Amino acid sequence: MPEIDGGRFPAKRSVGETVTVEADIFADGHDAIAAVLRYRVLLPIHGEVAAQPPEGLVHTWTEVPMAPLVNDRWRAEFPVTELGTYVFTVESWVDPFETWGRQLAKRIEAGQDIATELELGARMIEHAASRANGSAADAARLIAVSKTLRKGSSPAVDGEIGQLMRRYADRGAATVYAREVEVVVEAAMARFSTWYELFPRSVGKFPDVERLLPDIAQMGFDVLYFPPIHPIGHTQRKGANNRPATAGEPGSPWAIGSEEGGHKAVHPELGTLEDFRHLVQAAAKEGIDVALDIAFQCSPDHPYTREHPEWFKHRPDGSIQYAENPPKKYEDIYPFDFETESWRELWQELLSIVLFWADQGVRVFRVDNPHTKPFAFWEWLIAELRSSHPDVVLLSEAFTRPKVMYRLAKAGFSQSYTYFAWRNTAYELYQYFTELAQPPIREFFRPNLWPNTPDILTEYLQTGGRPAFQARLILAATLGASYGIYGPAFELMENRAREQGSEEYLDSEKYQTRKWNRESPDSLRELVTIINRIRHENPALQTDRGLRFHPTENDQLLAYSKSTPDNANVILTVVNVDPHHVQRGMVNLPLEELGIEGDRSYQAHELISGARYLWNGPRNFVEINPHSMPGQVFRFRRRVRSEHDFEYFL
Amino acid sequence: MPEIDGGRFPAKRSVGETVTVEADIFADGHDAIAAVLRYRVLLPIHGEVAAQPPEGLVHTWTEVPMAPLVNDRWRAEFPVTELGTYVFTVESWVDPFETWGRQLAKRIEAGQDIATELELGARMIEHAASRANGSAADAARLIAVSKTLRKGSSPAVDGEIGQLMRRYADRGAATVYAREVEVVVEAAMARFSTWYELFPRSVGKFPDVERLLPDIAQMGFDVLYFPPIHPIGHTQRKGANNRPATAGEPGSPWAIGSEEGGHKAVHPELGTLEDFRHLVQAAAKEGIDVALDIAFQCSPDHPYTREHPEWFKHRPDGSIQYAENPPKKYEDIYPFDFETESWRELWQELLSIVLFWADQGVRVFRVDNPHTKPFAFWEWLIAELRSSHPDVVLLSEAFTRPKVMYRLAKAGFSQSYTYFAWRNTAYELYQYFTELAQPPIREFFRPNLWPNTPDILTEYLQTGGRPAFQARLILAATLGASYGIYGPAFELMENRAREQGSEEYLDSEKYQTRKWNRESPDSLRELVTIINRIRHENPALQTDRGLRFHPTENDQLLAYSKSTPDNANVILTVVNVDPHHVQRGMVNLPLEELGIEGDRSYQAHELISGARYLWNGPRNFVEINPHSMPGQVFRFRRRVRSEHDFEYFL
Repeated sequence: MPEIDGGRFPAKRSVGETVTVEADIFADGHDAIAAVLRYRVLLPIHGEVAAQPPEGLVHTWTEVPMAPLVNDRWRAEFPVTELGTYVFTVESWVDPFETWGRQLAKRIEAGQDIATELELGARMIEHAASRANGSAADAARLIAVSKTLRKGSSPAVDGEIGQLMRRYADRGAATVYAREVEVVVEAAMARFSTWYELFPRSVGKFPDVERLLPDIAQMGFDVLYFPPIHPIGHTQRKGANNRPATAGEPGSPWAIGSEEGGHKAVHPELGTLEDFRHLVQAAAKEGIDVALDIAFQCSPDHPYTREHPEWFKHRPDGSIQYAENPPKKYEDIYPFDFETESWRELWQELLSIVLFWADQGVRVFRVDNPHTKPFAFWEWLIAELRSSHPDVVLLSEAFTRPKVMYRLAKAGFSQSYTYFAWRNTAYELYQYFTELAQPPIREFFRPNLWPNTPDILTEYLQTGGRPAFQARLILAATLGASYGIYGPAFELMENRAREQGSEEYLDSEKYQTRKWNRESPDSLRELVTIINRIRHENPALQTDRGLRFHPTENDQLLAYSKSTPDNANVILTVVNVDPHHVQRGMVNLPLEELGIEGDRSYQAHELISGARYLWNGPRNFVEINPHSMPGQVFRFRRRVRSEHDFEYFL
Repeated sequence: MPEIDGGRFPAKRSVGETVTVEADIFADGHDAIAAVLRYRVLLPIHGEVAAQPPEGLVHTWTEVPMAPLVNDRWRAEFPVTELGTYVFTVESWVDPFETWGRQLAKRIEAGQDIATELELGARMIEHAASRANGSAADAARLIAVSKTLRKGSSPAVDGEIGQLMRRYADRGAATVYAREVEVVVEAAMARFSTWYELFPRSVGKFPDVERLLPDIAQMGFDVLYFPPIHPIGHTQRKGANNRPATAGEPGSPWAIGSEEGGHKAVHPELGTLEDFRHLVQAAAKEGIDVALDIAFQCSPDHPYTREHPEWFKHRPDGSIQYAENPPKKYEDIYPFDFETESWRELWQELLSIVLFWADQGVRVFRVDNPHTKPFAFWEWLIAELRSSHPDVVLLSEAFTRPKVMYRLAKAGFSQSYTYFAWRNTAYELYQYFTELAQPPIREFFRPNLWPNTPDILTEYLQTGGRPAFQARLILAATLGASYGIYGPAFELMENRAREQGSEEYLDSEKYQTRKWNRESPDSLRELVTIINRIRHENPALQTDRGLRFHPTENDQLLAYSKSTPDNANVILTVVNVDPHHVQRGMVNLPLEELGIEGDRSYQAHELISGARYLWNGPRNFVEINPHSMPGQVFRFRRRVRSEHDFEYFL
């Protein structure tokens, strides 16, 4: 571990994380064994393509001793500090000197004659000395010890001699694990990111969006994601509420391409490419990455349909086949034919689109419906893209069957949309996030949680009022190291569906512009700001590792903690998923696992309200009124002062 | 599944079983897919080496269509009828015709114009016709249908045309699973066997043992296993109760080798090689296989120690290194040095020992302490042995850490000793046998359960009296498709340990002969006979698949069922593991899984006592007095007659 599908796919980490490697290591018989983890980085690239990777990093193995846990399981870890690919393997060997040392102690304890054993030990040490070519001093030290042994005194095997003997161990019969297991190391943003989705045309043009940046940064977002910004087709254009467009309606941004250009063009109504670049740079100054939508499909008016009809499927009448999910027809969309005979040219062109935007400074991409394109295509495209832009982050927008979603993550997507929006009860959330936290899924699938998207207005949000929006915000932001909201619809609590039983927004921005009152006093903006600040101040919330669920004795209360490996930062979140009623329960905490001393009081600091509670023992009372605030986020301070802390007490 | 460690080791089956293969199969998009399981046998050998395997069996793939379960999981199965190795793989492809058919139905239902779709279908059918080279009739039929389509009528896709289209599917872009997964098929006895261990020297000579055969067969055993039958060394010989031997004491049979010969010789006090062969043949007539003990170690007097001192480790004084577990010394035993520079000669010689006894007609071997020899040695030896004797069965006697035991099973041992002897509470038994029944363990590890061995007289047996022996017998025989007892110590309920806290027998037959009163009226012989007859009459007990545990609402009552895949034979066992007190409880059965109709009464026929109970519903009362019989073994008869069965009722 972590090895995915017998080495077929790499595990994932981000710069600054560690890779904990575990292996079953054993041999026949009862001899002691030793094991090391070996790792190296293959492509140490810093932001730009390194023509020549720095000397000393490539092809140089670093070794870390592995330590046994229980049941023949061994463990070691290594840090990943460079973007690119690391590989690791494990080497192990029988350690006769360690065996000899263990047995010697037993022999001495049993009062046996150990003269023969000392001679055997002296011989082993002499052999080690002969392997210490590199260090005359080490060799001399070993020879000296072997002489001492022959004089009848036994050495401390676990001291200096033990170290030297491990250093010069005979690895002639060592076993090396058959594979070099890969770990892809991505930018830190792949692990921890806070997304805000916005239709720029509802704001105006790019310069208007630019004026919003300080606001968005102040709310604590570091990714600003736009639906496609390209020219929109006219043929079969969709109008308000998905009806056929009438004159003047702007159409769906996902119907990409017109006589004004295709995937490498900017819609004139949003501005120029220059405006876009300016926006990207202005955003960077605010600590924000602009994320673009990669939607590999065309409107009937896209230049590709004329220039490369061979990239599309054709109907018997010669026309290009539009998208459909029979009996539904999407005649404003032409999908590419990824299996066309010209697939090489098509794939190269699609790669060139992503490279084009990467060259404009875009580092984050949200990929539309990747599950309707071949896995092999994504694996190829992402690898090609990373070879020149190792810091790009790609979010997979695949709402489909679990194994297909996991397969796309294995193909290389940094992050993935999830079923979070449809997991609303405490038990559903517990079950789903427990699945995502299990190996091997956690090794390759990084969830990005969205309470809403332009396509998804859940029944829970439609009917739960303000508490529902607040609860889903707190859940997304504390369950997931990466989450996002589609705004301002989210913070303004837009909850009107197009029709009963639908998850589509009424007057959806997909088909029309909307004017939002961002300054509304009802906005959840302040809560969003607080929650994002909590995320930035607490490293436990910046990773999906370290998630634990805790029993509450109330089905409507979900409690979970996230903690850093050293427990220096422990955050407990308790959410009342019932948006209507006050719920009470007892939160049961495994204090020892969380690094809290069970016999002392500890402070539970509720970070949304600022309230501080003194808790004691593993079982503590929580009452949540959803109409005040449906969730509580506690940071634990382990050390609570007592009279022992006062000088005069001593 | 079943694939072990990414294809590194084969799964195991026995002749007559089926292999159920499951795979995750999916593609991008929403197209229908089709999948087949492909399998073939590599070495169809019938008992003897086949110089030329029968034509038509080798290198010929058989295909079985796979069916989808849920969540992109697919399944198919194939039967294994030959000794040797089968391989399987999985092939899958996108099925445009199936997709077309599904969509066509939806289009028709929505009242859409389908002229274009029929044209598309006609073209697909024409393409399929062009692939039907082998059958002019099929091609003509397809062409005819394509014409019908062009005339505007749509075909029934799931009928004859669907079959033809599947037969002539375009597999040009099919995906074949990267590995051919191996399944080793062994003799039926590898799956289902009933062992009786006996020290022949306590009976007399081989002809005396021969006279016992009808008795052993009548008790229902099909394997008669002897500790080593070879000459025993004199040097450092062990006497009664593991004290140094005095003159005339026979020594431990595991101290193999003297001037009278080594591993290929018979101890003169047991008879001649000719006597042994006669015994093997006589046993075969009773349906019994004689099993020998393979203990690869030597007494200091073994001919190897003089002829091949290079096969042993030496101490600094030049003497051969005896076995030890410091501070304990076993100076009557010299282990081989499997890593000696002459390892090739040593390994070949050890293989020749097994082949020698196989040539005397021995097909079953119990291998002593395999975990103190290299895994690679066993993998090699077993493969070599099977190439000429594919019907041999090898039992691994490794009482060591779980992963080492599993690794030996992966190396090729047919069966393995287990921790059964030390699992005495209901919870321990539930936990352990649940672990063994899980994939992948169940695919390679076949447990053989022993309540006692010459080395193991558990505290439970020492202190639990007659009920303890009865309970352990019932558990071993019904939890395990293979089990064994060391007799007559077991059926005569010998329970005296050498000392408090020891699991060694007092006056152990390892060091001395014992005269047993096999005709004692207290003997458990009758129960053994009944239990073994139950095993032979009920196929559910002849496999370790189909084991399910059931709640009893009483910690002292363990309930579990075994059933054949078709539920034609369902056996429920309930054991009171408390040997002292009456225990009562409610057995909760998942009736539907066991093929029992929940709304009708069913008969529970207790097979030890012969009592028949009428049960109803999933929850039924059981009371077990350990002093009568600590276990009950029920066969369910699903059909209980009611008034509806009488003719005049109709």
